[in-house]
Amino acid sequence: MIIRDVIVTPIAFRDPPLLNVAGVHEPLALRSIVQVVVDGGVVGLGEGNGGAEFTEWLRRAVPAVIGKSVFDLNGIERAIDEALSFGADALARRDLRSVLAPIDVAAHDAQGKILGLPVSELLGGAVRRRVPYSAYLFYKWADHPDAGTGRIAGADEWGEATTPDGIVAQARALIDRYGFESIKLKAGVLPPDEEIAAIRALAEAFPGYPLRIDPNGAWTVETAERVAAEVGGLLEYLEDPVLGLDGMSQVRAATGLPLATNMCVVAFEQIPEAVRKDSVQIILGDHHYWGGLRHTRELGMVCETFGIGLSMHSNSHLGISFAAMTHLAAASPGLTYACDTHYPWNRGDDVIVPGALEIVGGSVAVPTGPGLGVELDEAALARQHRVYLDSGRRERDDAGYIRRFQPDFDPRLPRF
Amino acid sequence: MIIRDVIVTPIAFRDPPLLNVAGVHEPLALRSIVQVVVDGGVVGLGEGNGGAEFTEWLRRAVPAVIGKSVFDLNGIERAIDEALSFGADALARRDLRSVLAPIDVAAHDAQGKILGLPVSELLGGAVRRRVPYSAYLFYKWADHPDAGTGRIAGADEWGEATTPDGIVAQARALIDRYGFESIKLKAGVLPPDEEIAAIRALAEAFPGYPLRIDPNGAWTVETAERVAAEVGGLLEYLEDPVLGLDGMSQVRAATGLPLATNMCVVAFEQIPEAVRKDSVQIILGDHHYWGGLRHTRELGMVCETFGIGLSMHSNSHLGISFAAMTHLAAASPGLTYACDTHYPWNRGDDVIVPGALEIVGGSVAVPTGPGLGVELDEAALARQHRVYLDSGRRERDDAGYIRRFQPDFDPRLPRF
Ligand SMILES: [Mg+2]
Ligand SMILES: [Mg+2]
Repeated sequence: MIIRDVIVTPIAFRDPPLLNVAGVHEPLALRSIVQVVVDGGVVGLGEGNGGAEFTEWLRRAVPAVIGKSVFDLNGIERAIDEALSFGADALARRDLRSVLAPIDVAAHDAQGKILGLPVSELLGGAVRRRVPYSAYLFYKWADHPDAGTGRIAGADEWGEATTPDGIVAQARALIDRYGFESIKLKAGVLPPDEEIAAIRALAEAFPGYPLRIDPNGAWTVETAERVAAEVGGLLEYLEDPVLGLDGMSQVRAATGLPLATNMCVVAFEQIPEAVRKDSVQIILGDHHYWGGLRHTRELGMVCETFGIGLSMHSNSHLGISFAAMTHLAAASPGLTYACDTHYPWNRGDDVIVPGALEIVGGSVAVPTGPGLGVELDEAALARQHRVYLDSGRRERDDAGYIRRFQPDFDPRLPRF
Repeated sequence: MIIRDVIVTPIAFRDPPLLNVAGVHEPLALRSIVQVVVDGGVVGLGEGNGGAEFTEWLRRAVPAVIGKSVFDLNGIERAIDEALSFGADALARRDLRSVLAPIDVAAHDAQGKILGLPVSELLGGAVRRRVPYSAYLFYKWADHPDAGTGRIAGADEWGEATTPDGIVAQARALIDRYGFESIKLKAGVLPPDEEIAAIRALAEAFPGYPLRIDPNGAWTVETAERVAAEVGGLLEYLEDPVLGLDGMSQVRAATGLPLATNMCVVAFEQIPEAVRKDSVQIILGDHHYWGGLRHTRELGMVCETFGIGLSMHSNSHLGISFAAMTHLAAASPGLTYACDTHYPWNRGDDVIVPGALEIVGGSVAVPTGPGLGVELDEAALARQHRVYLDSGRRERDDAGYIRRFQPDFDPRLPRF
């Protein structure tokens, strides 16, 4: 049960041109794949943030983790903290947790494989057999512009979405294919009146579906209050309407709407101030932020204690993280909302053997095999690592990318 | 891994006449022993509160737990909640957690036995190989008065302690035998000036030893402030000087001393108000209160998040609980204080095979065998069950017992 090696592989995978407050998703999204190799040959899988800097952090953590028991999560965490929190390039607390996250997931996967138990059982047992996810809508271009001309050559399978009708059509396509029963709109992209119109159109097209909108802090408090006045009654919750705990607190006080966040509370140390100011009513847990599966379970208890709801945030991710999210959500009694996921936006570049995680009826069956219940496709991993190397891409830069086509794009917030 | 049976055995064991705010410990202390029998014959051990009512609660929980996977802690908890939280005799939230506690411990023991892992590893790994405990001093009588005459026939091995010199002698005896390196005085028994004198005498006799005093809410705010002014500088922390979150908050504001509690915060739902009022700086976690090992680990994260220290409370207990406390403390990075334990006060009536848990140098080595690392002594269990049955004792009643010798004893608080 001793960790003998940790293999860190940076990868890139195709991503559609999804618009957000920071710009637009580049043609390639970046992730890191972690393989924790344990005595006897068991290999645990983890997936973490991407890019050269994060990969370097992970690699600095490797020597500290080798030699630990794969069950000694406390020891693994402490070793990572000690390896990365000193010196000129010391990491902040929350960056340490982001490094721990994929290693924690891989350790859980290895534990489960050794013990013959699914990760959900290691986390206290699945309280649901299927985990519901929401349809995650994006304003988007028809396809990536041609790198040479800047013109869009063709349309990807999802097409363009820049209007209320386009958003409804996208929701329809996602729901037809996956059966989602709740809807989230990534917003902060168009002037608020257009996004209000999109919410109204969605409410009309999908009566009874819980709706959420997430402008990622693009709005002023005044704008947020105006949006709330217009469509607040249609929303399950309002996600990060404004930046910062004080702004969120003001919006909460003025509107009474439940506010969710994956921006102003992304670490345990931010919770006390958020509680004091009543800034957030729902935390979008994300094990990539919160230090892996175990600590995100503990976040669940912190939320329960303080009457804060729990939902789940997503960044562009592949199947290993999708499996981890599903096990975690299954074992979190307090997670009563449909989770976010970017998974439907993937273009087939996953590094796991297909079939383990299918979204049917808007939900995913919790894998019941040992560990995460997914299998690494070694050839696919090598392929996506090669894509990463060949691309020359090293960090995500949604703003730099959109500026190639909209040179006056200004990423500063609030925007509206 | 399916739970096929849960055996609940009420027991009684000899206890010395330890004085406290509620009266005096009776000649027999009550506990319950839980055996969770899993497919294939593995038996997990748990120890919980005692008495007829608690045993009855446990027995009502048994049918709900049978058939669950011993790994499905979420399912076990929910099943207990559903079985006991409805109807005329519905239990309160914190009583439900007290019922869950010994079953959770037994489930962890069974898991560890099945997997070949110590419970500390199931809880995330031991961050310390030995768990320090404190010398737990009590005002006490020389021995139990003769039931017929009310006169004390002889002295137990610890003798009487009703003066500062007696308390120092008791500390010396405990430290000589067990090597404790910190000291806690159970107080609220004598007028405060006498207890102040005892603290002063301890500080003089054991320089450099962390000292704590716990009057269990016997004092008024004014008395607490006076005690703090007299001996606050000698204390590591002041435990439950007064009753209630408001009083604690006042004492904190007036004295600046770190206040600990196992009285005003014994459940997650009490934490928000305690945080708001800055009533407690240290929570004495007790897995018997907090719903078992897993939730007490989660309490650790709640405490870390809100900058609250973590220590460990004890009630009269035997070896199964001592093992559980030791594994839990070992796996709780935030538990930075020596834990409380009544274990040295036991008179040899344990139900486990001796030798697994020795206090040496003030600490206990974390068992490294599978599960809790202790073995049930079936004959001893039968013997202590017989003691329970024969005694006719069904509930703890420190006040009723002391009134037999001090008819004017008034248990109302605050007393001083
Ligand atoms: Mg968000
Ligand atoms: Mg106490």
